[in-house]
Amino acid sequence: MYAKIVTGKFDKKIALMANILHRIGVKTSSAEQVYAALTSRNGLAGWWTNNTTGEGNAVGNTIQFRFGAGGFDMKVIELQAPVLVVWEVVDGPEEWQGTKIRFELKPDGEYVIVLFSHLNWQTPNEFMHHCSTKWAIFLMSLKQLVETGEGNPDPYDIKIDNWN
Amino acid sequence: MYAKIVTGKFDKKIALMANILHRIGVKTSSAEQVYAALTSRNGLAGWWTNNTTGEGNAVGNTIQFRFGAGGFDMKVIELQAPVLVVWEVVDGPEEWQGTKIRFELKPDGEYVIVLFSHLNWQTPNEFMHHCSTKWAIFLMSLKQLVETGEGNPDPYDIKIDNWN
Repeated sequence: MYAKIVTGKFDKKIALMANILHRIGVKTSSAEQVYAALTSRNGLAGWWTNNTTGEGNAVGNTIQFRFGAGGFDMKVIELQAPVLVVWEVVDGPEEWQGTKIRFELKPDGEYVIVLFSHLNWQTPNEFMHHCSTKWAIFLMSLKQLVETGEGNPDPYDIKIDNWN
Repeated sequence: MYAKIVTGKFDKKIALMANILHRIGVKTSSAEQVYAALTSRNGLAGWWTNNTTGEGNAVGNTIQFRFGAGGFDMKVIELQAPVLVVWEVVDGPEEWQGTKIRFELKPDGEYVIVLFSHLNWQTPNEFMHHCSTKWAIFLMSLKQLVETGEGNPDPYDIKIDNWN
């Protein structure tokens, strides 16, 4: 992704950071319940991956998420109960390292809206395309977990392509 | 979304265009079959919206997609059978007008990979977050259509939030 910048006599192209964005609505009156699914080990294991270690309920904590093919370590860098959760990726695939993952919650009528962003990808490569679709699938699993009590975390997640 | 540009003595902030990216893998040996689902009225009506008018198999054609809440008119601006389809949004919600939608197909083993992009959003607003998740849902419907013969187009699509 490039922007053409006009600076006096010169046109410059600069590489831009890229972001994954999503929005889901969880049918519940309790933002606390959605927040718990994003900050407790049991909650996270119920929608993202069964193989989750650590608690996300305190700034500075590290959570380990493991999947068949590898995993991610996330450091909790910001929390505002029950409206905001921000992680920084401290270990994982090269493309994920240093990126940030943000969940913003806001009640809206019958729903708690979750605005999700995975920020600061260096390159919008094919792996980023894959992760964007896969995040949608897992966020739908979060919605399902809170609404029905049962999500589809890895290894029960819906497969989207040959990378899983 | 902003980038800080260092130009001599001055730091400038510029607003950047934002993109929605996705990747799915359709389990088929026939890229032609996926291409048909992106260029024929019947194909498009089978995964995106039942209420589709027009054929997408010639550059310059306009396709009308209608949903409960409104719709989009797309002009076909580039075609390479069976590997590339590009549309420009010529009518629809303000945020969509002038954006481009691109499907790149490439066979990979048992799959035909679809690299999807919805390019050049002016602002990464809440509606863009919604559309990103919704595109993932509809691309999974495209995958299902080709693999099983039956997709989940509007009005049978999976609902993600209070905007549908």
